[in-house]
Amino acid sequence: MISKVKNAMSNLVGGMMPHGHHHHNHHSAGGQNSGQESLPHRFPYGRPDFLDLTPELLQYSTEHASRPVVTLKRGTRLSWGAGYAEAINAGKSMLNEDQASCEKLFVRKPSGKHRNSTLVDDNGDTTGIPLQFWGVFDGHAGSGAAIMASKLLHRIIRDGLGEICHLLENPNSAPPICLAKNGSPFQAEAKKGATPESAEDPDAVCDASVRFYMEKVVSLESLVMGVIETAFKQMDDLIEKEKTSYAISGGCCALAAIYLMGKLYVANAGDSRAIIIRNNEVIPMTNEFTPESERQRLQYLGFLRPELLGNEFTHIEFPRRIQHSELGKKMLYRDHTMTGWAYKTIVEDDLKFPLIYGEGKKARVMATIGVTRGLGDHDLKVYNSNIYIKPFLSCVPEVSLNFTTCQLRLRSHLTVSARVASVS
Amino acid sequence: MISKVKNAMSNLVGGMMPHGHHHHNHHSAGGQNSGQESLPHRFPYGRPDFLDLTPELLQYSTEHASRPVVTLKRGTRLSWGAGYAEAINAGKSMLNEDQASCEKLFVRKPSGKHRNSTLVDDNGDTTGIPLQFWGVFDGHAGSGAAIMASKLLHRIIRDGLGEICHLLENPNSAPPICLAKNGSPFQAEAKKGATPESAEDPDAVCDASVRFYMEKVVSLESLVMGVIETAFKQMDDLIEKEKTSYAISGGCCALAAIYLMGKLYVANAGDSRAIIIRNNEVIPMTNEFTPESERQRLQYLGFLRPELLGNEFTHIEFPRRIQHSELGKKMLYRDHTMTGWAYKTIVEDDLKFPLIYGEGKKARVMATIGVTRGLGDHDLKVYNSNIYIKPFLSCVPEVSLNFTTCQLRLRSHLTVSARVASVS
Repeated sequence: MISKVKNAMSNLVGGMMPHGHHHHNHHSAGGQNSGQESLPHRFPYGRPDFLDLTPELLQYSTEHASRPVVTLKRGTRLSWGAGYAEAINAGKSMLNEDQASCEKLFVRKPSGKHRNSTLVDDNGDTTGIPLQFWGVFDGHAGSGAAIMASKLLHRIIRDGLGEICHLLENPNSAPPICLAKNGSPFQAEAKKGATPESAEDPDAVCDASVRFYMEKVVSLESLVMGVIETAFKQMDDLIEKEKTSYAISGGCCALAAIYLMGKLYVANAGDSRAIIIRNNEVIPMTNEFTPESERQRLQYLGFLRPELLGNEFTHIEFPRRIQHSELGKKMLYRDHTMTGWAYKTIVEDDLKFPLIYGEGKKARVMATIGVTRGLGDHDLKVYNSNIYIKPFLSCVPEVSLNFTTCQLRLRSHLTVSARVASVS
Repeated sequence: MISKVKNAMSNLVGGMMPHGHHHHNHHSAGGQNSGQESLPHRFPYGRPDFLDLTPELLQYSTEHASRPVVTLKRGTRLSWGAGYAEAINAGKSMLNEDQASCEKLFVRKPSGKHRNSTLVDDNGDTTGIPLQFWGVFDGHAGSGAAIMASKLLHRIIRDGLGEICHLLENPNSAPPICLAKNGSPFQAEAKKGATPESAEDPDAVCDASVRFYMEKVVSLESLVMGVIETAFKQMDDLIEKEKTSYAISGGCCALAAIYLMGKLYVANAGDSRAIIIRNNEVIPMTNEFTPESERQRLQYLGFLRPELLGNEFTHIEFPRRIQHSELGKKMLYRDHTMTGWAYKTIVEDDLKFPLIYGEGKKARVMATIGVTRGLGDHDLKVYNSNIYIKPFLSCVPEVSLNFTTCQLRLRSHLTVSARVASVS
């Protein structure tokens, strides 16, 4: 069910760059991975495990001249009969920087041995709640982050779900607002607001009626969404942490589809896409996060924290660069509050480069990156500067929740792809 | 076409409060309008001009015991045959704090005499581009801001459109990116990017190819949207400025529908609603801006600028207040990046009151206000504190653009209302 078809570039590029000339990077990634040359790789380079490539086939898959389409071996079956195809995106990088994973896991209560160990796989133990995972990781400026995420993100999600396993096992009772200190095993819920306040809280009596009577009901599904959102953040933090010990190059968009207990969750941080095809109708399951779609969020950050723009960029958007000779004239602009355009008198500050610049696939954040969510990129700086891009990027996915198993399995096809050229 | 039906409260409230007990204010508005008692009113209190109430009818309309439904006089016709009805919202305030306007104006180039004078009405001069305006201003904590906006917002929009009048008169040519210093009359567009850079800009030559070839095409409609967005900001700034000389109490949600050159623009800052009824189908023209719908925007501001929370509030959302005795336990939470919920260990900081608290119509920003966009409220503070609410409120509307004149006039009805109970 997964089909991954890469853009076939219409023209070959003569000289190959070893790194850093991915479409996301306008300039080469200055400062990215600096000082990491001597560190070992966190994971060796490879193609997705489920392709099961021999060293010869792995070498063959990197041939820019032939650019073979790599698919599953005849007879290989991924879960749910998922399909897969990829081709190196000639001209952008020496190696294919994108990764994918397709895993069946089991959610269990964390045991002392396994707790906080995301490296543990299931080792054939099929007890617990089954979890089906598909992931696509569209790498840029190196493949390190994409490889690491393809190896670990599903395990982080599984372990996060393990922490609420006792709640998943009681799907008909609403999750408690408050848990005991150890979190698990589940203890009695904290007393509801209408009960008398504890004597420890001197404020409690006087305005208990205002403050304590309300208690929101939180659904089990929104807890699963919270686990997925948190897992992306944990994955991103882990990349940052392990960069001190390993060479983990670049960054990646991350798209994960998670099937759990009859429901499909699709989490997207970046500009990959997941669609459902149902009765020949295409149902988008994701929104894309780009400098254009997230313009106002980024401008708002630049407005509130101008120091992040390093005195080189302006958070105001203009339809083109302003020339010095145009000072005092009036030019169209948009700030973080606007959807329409208005004229403003050009002042010296407006000559700075716009934080968001360019249109469509050429739109960039600080002239550097064309996508605004994903994992990694902790060292990514604006070319020839000390301005970090990372504060403007978000590692948190948007999670959508739509289909029940019956609908999905019997009448629909789920397609997940990075940079879709065509899907079938 | 405008129908305005207020919630009929199902039970009368015994004691009336003179001010400040609007549904938007949880506590009474501490600090609001402080020191303004001795200032004259900017505009006298009244009901919308088009109701043409006599002093006796005005007095009658304020009777809480009878709460008459006030409608247009028999034989009165608003533009487009618009309708109107209102009733005082018994128990919330002494006077009806909501206002409305329905105006036909004409957009002309600004002349020296009229420039920057938003108080000028058309005085029967019907030259220029016709503009039909409907506005609803749902006031709270006083009627001053709502009255002022109902008198002036349409004129600010008209004058803003006057500044681009020369562009509106040439609807088939794309608006120029850059105008001469005086802005008007229209001069030749700045040279396109492909021309050689001026010698004044030493940076220009080296990366001209990167920076200067792109120029966005901006539509005339997005200029009109920009004028409307800017006008709301100007209206809000004017209220703030004139508060130094006049008593202008409270704040208001603002919803404006503007018909110009065959297109309808609906601008909404608050929780009022505009709908189109077409073939008995209801088409929403607005989204509502409430603590729940704007939760993540507000939390993000509180996260980036914690000083605005005055050490009293936390930007993290919890499903209920936390008791001191629960320190160290785990509680569900959401931060500004999350849609789902997750558990966190409760620390001292989490005992602060949540920035966003409550559900549905009871949701409040800093326990004070139930709406997150609008005009006015510059002095509004958290009860018994020096924490201002205004930084969390936005005066900028969301502008939608949908229908052509033919569709709208022949087959549809536009209904604009504050706190809709029922519409017909």
